[in-house]
Amino acid sequence: MRLSRFFLPILKENPREAEIVSHRLMLRAGMIKQQAAGSFSWLPLGKRVLDKVCRIIREEQNRAGALEIMMPTIQSAELWRESGRYDDYGDEMLRLKDRQKRDMLYGPTNEEMVTDIFRSYVKSYKDLPLNLYHIQWKFRDEMRPRFGVMRSREFLMKDAYSFDLDYEGAKAAYNRMFVSYLRTFTRMGLQAIPMRADTGPIGGDLSHEFIILADTGESQVYCHRDYLGLPVPGADTDFGNDTEIAGIVREWTTPYAATDEMHDEAAWSGVSADDQVSARGIEVGHIFHFGEKYSKPMGASVTGPDGKEHHVSMGSYGIGPSRLIAAIIEAFHDDAGIIWPESVAPFDIALINMKPGDQACDAVCEDLYARLTNAGKDVLYDDTDQRAGGKFATADLIGLPWQVIVGPRGVAAGEVEIKNRKSGERETLSAAGLLARFGGH
Amino acid sequence: MRLSRFFLPILKENPREAEIVSHRLMLRAGMIKQQAAGSFSWLPLGKRVLDKVCRIIREEQNRAGALEIMMPTIQSAELWRESGRYDDYGDEMLRLKDRQKRDMLYGPTNEEMVTDIFRSYVKSYKDLPLNLYHIQWKFRDEMRPRFGVMRSREFLMKDAYSFDLDYEGAKAAYNRMFVSYLRTFTRMGLQAIPMRADTGPIGGDLSHEFIILADTGESQVYCHRDYLGLPVPGADTDFGNDTEIAGIVREWTTPYAATDEMHDEAAWSGVSADDQVSARGIEVGHIFHFGEKYSKPMGASVTGPDGKEHHVSMGSYGIGPSRLIAAIIEAFHDDAGIIWPESVAPFDIALINMKPGDQACDAVCEDLYARLTNAGKDVLYDDTDQRAGGKFATADLIGLPWQVIVGPRGVAAGEVEIKNRKSGERETLSAAGLLARFGGH
Repeated sequence: MRLSRFFLPILKENPREAEIVSHRLMLRAGMIKQQAAGSFSWLPLGKRVLDKVCRIIREEQNRAGALEIMMPTIQSAELWRESGRYDDYGDEMLRLKDRQKRDMLYGPTNEEMVTDIFRSYVKSYKDLPLNLYHIQWKFRDEMRPRFGVMRSREFLMKDAYSFDLDYEGAKAAYNRMFVSYLRTFTRMGLQAIPMRADTGPIGGDLSHEFIILADTGESQVYCHRDYLGLPVPGADTDFGNDTEIAGIVREWTTPYAATDEMHDEAAWSGVSADDQVSARGIEVGHIFHFGEKYSKPMGASVTGPDGKEHHVSMGSYGIGPSRLIAAIIEAFHDDAGIIWPESVAPFDIALINMKPGDQACDAVCEDLYARLTNAGKDVLYDDTDQRAGGKFATADLIGLPWQVIVGPRGVAAGEVEIKNRKSGERETLSAAGLLARFGGH
Repeated sequence: MRLSRFFLPILKENPREAEIVSHRLMLRAGMIKQQAAGSFSWLPLGKRVLDKVCRIIREEQNRAGALEIMMPTIQSAELWRESGRYDDYGDEMLRLKDRQKRDMLYGPTNEEMVTDIFRSYVKSYKDLPLNLYHIQWKFRDEMRPRFGVMRSREFLMKDAYSFDLDYEGAKAAYNRMFVSYLRTFTRMGLQAIPMRADTGPIGGDLSHEFIILADTGESQVYCHRDYLGLPVPGADTDFGNDTEIAGIVREWTTPYAATDEMHDEAAWSGVSADDQVSARGIEVGHIFHFGEKYSKPMGASVTGPDGKEHHVSMGSYGIGPSRLIAAIIEAFHDDAGIIWPESVAPFDIALINMKPGDQACDAVCEDLYARLTNAGKDVLYDDTDQRAGGKFATADLIGLPWQVIVGPRGVAAGEVEIKNRKSGERETLSAAGLLARFGGH
């Protein structure tokens, strides 16, 4: 993409409304624009990150056997009356009436609707296990939306729902999502630690929040240092092997880990002081087993191998991709701007032409642009007539992993400069050397 | 994908509520489920088609220079008061109040919001042309939603918006979208004919509907036979060359073409009877130049080369992917079910194991499944224990372009059968011959 044809409205000043660094940087980098309280447009740079994040989530959901569907945003109140949540949900639910005066709502979540899909079609245990997910906009009318997309009213959510014959099956489904989440966050460069979460009136131990450590995190968390070195399951993990998957979950739930809410001082004191990691954390995912909470009132049952009807045992599994992007920035930034992990960067390389109009610089840039693109790299080619300082500041701010700098002096010497955004390291290379580095020729 | 692990709720009976063939087939093939009047969930098979359709749209929008963003579904009424449309829009607009009692609405379209984005950042003609699009859910509260996703209340729409300094620029932007649309529909196997549409109070000739011919179409259309043979611009079309693009538009707007609404009997009688094509049509896209309709009341202007402020000249360009899928089915089906064009088929190949459990059949199927998948084909492997007749009926119903049939007799002879869903032609091949056919080995 040529920057001259891209839409990248960089803000020079720090926006006053932004209280946290991710919100500030997303506004300054032209990723998002606020449209109303807690409501944002994603501009081209932000949309590219959103797509990359969703793609990783999708790949890992599919790998774990979940199937993608798409449910509508507007739901009938009737469904929510069946589960009893229409009255319980409170003011966060955006309620409305259609032209026929029917009660409708903007889905804050989809347990009821997906249970309705299930009960409409699935009648036998032979069709289980089943896990359906979608990535769809949700609305929760927060009293005080703030922190940009970290706590917005309209937000994107990946929500998966599992259906099984019994608790054992549901636990295996839960474990698959647990491992899928470990892989998902790791692929985004994040170290996410699963922490036991409150299961409320349902009880049991099958609820975990996935927390990333970041100095600017929203809450205090406590965990054993072992988590920082635990191996994350690879792409060859066999999600069809319940025992293997359960083993991974055991490994990842054995050391101490707790959010402030669930913190147990007695157990914590059993961890040696050297191994105690107390830090700020941001929740990026939540998985939850709730058994028959919806299947029973809504009549979602299957015939079991015993010939009898069984209410299915369910769980739900959420990741907020829009919120996650803010969390990634909280974890990866410096004073100059964002530092994207390679897997979610909006472009891989900023190709900076220091002197557009200079025939030699233009020729080298055009050539590199074409060859890097052919090598499968996403290149943002800064072909604008901004001054060099501004170009560097922009490249640092938007945080692409690599900057390739082409100036007249280097070109005369047959060289280009390459800068790693994260380490700040610079290196001078021939054009051929540069291409070899990025797998091109 | 193994059918035993997929969620494909086929209906054996024709659903009574479906009045048109696409609605009936989408329900029967387990593509969609109705959730409320004019509101549908997309089940896994349908979601795959939706993704493929959106991908083609996206690629062709990007090729033509449009940039993808994502605007929220819920909008502030304030913006619509600025344009004057909040009161004008009528009962189709889904109005609501948030918990602060602020007037909000579910966006039926996004002219106001995108104009707001534009005016917030763009100040100079040097940043033009600009074309921003998104693919987002819309809600229009139709009095009588019907025909499934063909006329639903919540629907997906790709809407692009162009901004230019003056009419000439806007016309060039309009032409780019015109050509982009020709390519988009052609890639989906559709022959779409641009027909001049009513421009209402704005006037001018820059509004076209793209209509596909289908016996079950919703309206009567009239066009010159020449359209059926016009060459569609290739992938190498230079969207940066306004003259070339204008030439293509001229070629595609010269022969007579009109919807019932715009039909002109006098002009029509000038077309020789042999060349008159009078048929049923379905609208699949609409492009529209509206000049300063929004930029003037909303104050979206740029400094021109003359140093003066100019309200930008705008256009909008819509395609409804969800509706488009219904239109594709209306155009491509037979008594047995859907016949997908290859580019939008949910899977490329139905691999049918006639005798699961038979060691030889299983081995051949597993091997073909792995090799075809490695060759980049999307394969739906029917490994279920349904009887053969049911498997064939399902494969025909869901309309994958190719069926590969593996049975014990063929396997003993070292052969598999291949059936083309569209032509019905069958052929017997060796496994190696089959793989060669699909680019595998």
